[in-house]
Amino acid sequence: MRKLYEYPKSRAAFERACKVIPSGIYGHQGPVEGCYVPIEAFPLYSSKAQGTYLWDLDGNKFIDYMCAYGPNILGYNDPDVDEAAARQRAISDCTTLPNPVMIDFADLLVDTVASADWAFFAKNGNDVTTGAIMTARAYTHRKKIVFFKGYYHGVSPWTQKVDYPGVIEEDVCNNIYVEWNNFEELSRVFEENRDQIAAIIAQPYMHGNFMDNQMPAEGFWQKVRKLCDDTGTVLIIDDVRAGFRMDLAGSDHYFGFKADLICFCKALANGYNVSALCGRDFLKNTVSSLSYTGSYWMSAVPFAAGIACIEKMKKIDCPRILNEKGQKLKDGLIAAAAKYGYTLNVTGMPSLFYLRLADDPTFMLHQEWIAQCVQRGVFFTGHHNHFINAALSDDDIRETVEIADEAFSVVRDRHDK
Amino acid sequence: MRKLYEYPKSRAAFERACKVIPSGIYGHQGPVEGCYVPIEAFPLYSSKAQGTYLWDLDGNKFIDYMCAYGPNILGYNDPDVDEAAARQRAISDCTTLPNPVMIDFADLLVDTVASADWAFFAKNGNDVTTGAIMTARAYTHRKKIVFFKGYYHGVSPWTQKVDYPGVIEEDVCNNIYVEWNNFEELSRVFEENRDQIAAIIAQPYMHGNFMDNQMPAEGFWQKVRKLCDDTGTVLIIDDVRAGFRMDLAGSDHYFGFKADLICFCKALANGYNVSALCGRDFLKNTVSSLSYTGSYWMSAVPFAAGIACIEKMKKIDCPRILNEKGQKLKDGLIAAAAKYGYTLNVTGMPSLFYLRLADDPTFMLHQEWIAQCVQRGVFFTGHHNHFINAALSDDDIRETVEIADEAFSVVRDRHDK
Repeated sequence: MRKLYEYPKSRAAFERACKVIPSGIYGHQGPVEGCYVPIEAFPLYSSKAQGTYLWDLDGNKFIDYMCAYGPNILGYNDPDVDEAAARQRAISDCTTLPNPVMIDFADLLVDTVASADWAFFAKNGNDVTTGAIMTARAYTHRKKIVFFKGYYHGVSPWTQKVDYPGVIEEDVCNNIYVEWNNFEELSRVFEENRDQIAAIIAQPYMHGNFMDNQMPAEGFWQKVRKLCDDTGTVLIIDDVRAGFRMDLAGSDHYFGFKADLICFCKALANGYNVSALCGRDFLKNTVSSLSYTGSYWMSAVPFAAGIACIEKMKKIDCPRILNEKGQKLKDGLIAAAAKYGYTLNVTGMPSLFYLRLADDPTFMLHQEWIAQCVQRGVFFTGHHNHFINAALSDDDIRETVEIADEAFSVVRDRHDK
Repeated sequence: MRKLYEYPKSRAAFERACKVIPSGIYGHQGPVEGCYVPIEAFPLYSSKAQGTYLWDLDGNKFIDYMCAYGPNILGYNDPDVDEAAARQRAISDCTTLPNPVMIDFADLLVDTVASADWAFFAKNGNDVTTGAIMTARAYTHRKKIVFFKGYYHGVSPWTQKVDYPGVIEEDVCNNIYVEWNNFEELSRVFEENRDQIAAIIAQPYMHGNFMDNQMPAEGFWQKVRKLCDDTGTVLIIDDVRAGFRMDLAGSDHYFGFKADLICFCKALANGYNVSALCGRDFLKNTVSSLSYTGSYWMSAVPFAAGIACIEKMKKIDCPRILNEKGQKLKDGLIAAAAKYGYTLNVTGMPSLFYLRLADDPTFMLHQEWIAQCVQRGVFFTGHHNHFINAALSDDDIRETVEIADEAFSVVRDRHDK
């Protein structure tokens, strides 16, 4: 049996943080957000990262299946990406005029992403989902936006719920929420809101939190695409989370349709700070008409990093290897669960796998198991999809399954008593 | 007479960009935005930057008074900031857990900024102005926001105008616009909207575009502060542009009052990508309650850069030296204008000077003069405030005044004919 990790330095740092940072660590990385449950099993601060590994402040080493919640796709500190970034940094980064590396990056995205006739760069995923909504409204002169329940499209008030702090009715009063994969409901909503719907915004499949992830039903996207075409509605794919882990040509391409607008961020530059809104020609002039920019949106270093990242992803056929690694891990985890009489649901793409121990509707058993994994060096999270990166080795997968096995045995033992 | 710069490579790059990027270059850096008029006198892409200088794609060298529109405060590629950033980059940047350098940066801001009891980090200035609005609404349970005409608080729909593409009535229907420095109008607005105003959001002085910049009237901020206190309204200072160029303790401190929330971005880390919302204790729990985060918001490298930047700014007393340099330049430019019978209005803080040739209400003369300066190697902009950085030398100022003088003489000659 492995010795369980302890986190005294993480806890001390968190206490220090709480004095000067609201909630100490906010958002998806914070212990209050919900994905970290059970909180006490998790470290809170990192001291270093390399490849697929993360070390916490107490020196504990983890095989990190969160990958910075997506950005780490090639492995932390990838030498090729870092070298390209350092080369650009020595020349310039954030200056009064953009460096033409911005054009090179746009060219590469247009060459790579099937639905990209152009690229517009920003910083956050939220910047580009918001830009997409503004583009759709400006183009259609309509206001309403259709979302699929379980969505996450960023943090702007328009993406939140009216009962969330700081959000007002006006922020969300044009939002319509439809069940994922329910084309009849979607059609009805379109009939009830004729000529009023500017856009559908959706992830390529339902990879929401606190739920088994769901692939699109057979033909779903083709029907949605046709509905948008028939009604002059802009189809926005939010590929911030899944982008480049499913298909380098875009997750819409993976499912055999073309988005009108597609949003990228996380995996775009292996952790360098950039996001991109890409789209079809007919929307280009509308995007040009927006008042939309930011202080660092044309910084050169992330563009250089993005070029190196995409070129390397192409070279190694990244989605294929991530899904192969993910599949191997998935098979191993399911088998380990079965050994102890458990059913582990592993849903979503293998490169973005979501875990749920099916034998307990309260999630408590699942959380116990996650806690046992984390405290042995496998950084899983409670109720969020995971991410595979290219630096994950077969040995890492073997060790992960070993630890998962040990964690299952502990949970089984406890509950057999 | 100096030979005028030409920009064939910038123009060719722009043509290439227009094929794959909406409008080629968007926002404040783009030639369509309005500040670049006359466009043909300006380069469009940079090849490198160092200290106070920028080189365009055609190899022309400029003394750059735009400083990346603010981020360049210590000089491009400042060795101390870059070294701190590189040291952190070798360890980690964007990872699953934050590095405690985030806490160190928050500690430093709390020590430095008078109205900061805490700090919350994001990426864009717009992220933190939006976070401030959400905080004010969540805290007060009110909806309305008061703006001063001529404001710029970012690019989210709530900060824009209803007739801007992509903006809908609901985005801005709770905005109230008041004349800068008009306390009577402000008081009347508060009476008419009793218990409905969540916040006033304002720059520390009116540094809008296409207008002479205006300092607050004597006692204006003290009256506004009292009005906010009396009515339970949150006072938000948007220090994104002026922050650290007026006063390291915050531009509210410069004017002798305390903001409830203060927004920083540009000069915070000498071009590394970070923004910060700081504020008073009574709002800390409200900020904690927001659903507000982003993929790169806890990346470690910009925090390390920010620490090095602020420490260096303290060491060299940055606002003082920037304002001295700015004053010297201002005096030189005004004298050069006078030599040719022109009146040059130089408004705002010297470290953020705004230029307007007063002798022509059409702005055409002003634009002609700006064009002559730019084509001789002084990067001024038509109708936006400028920025001083610490690497600007007395020789640079002398050369700038010499070029400005030559530019005035050309304009004078033309109009005397």
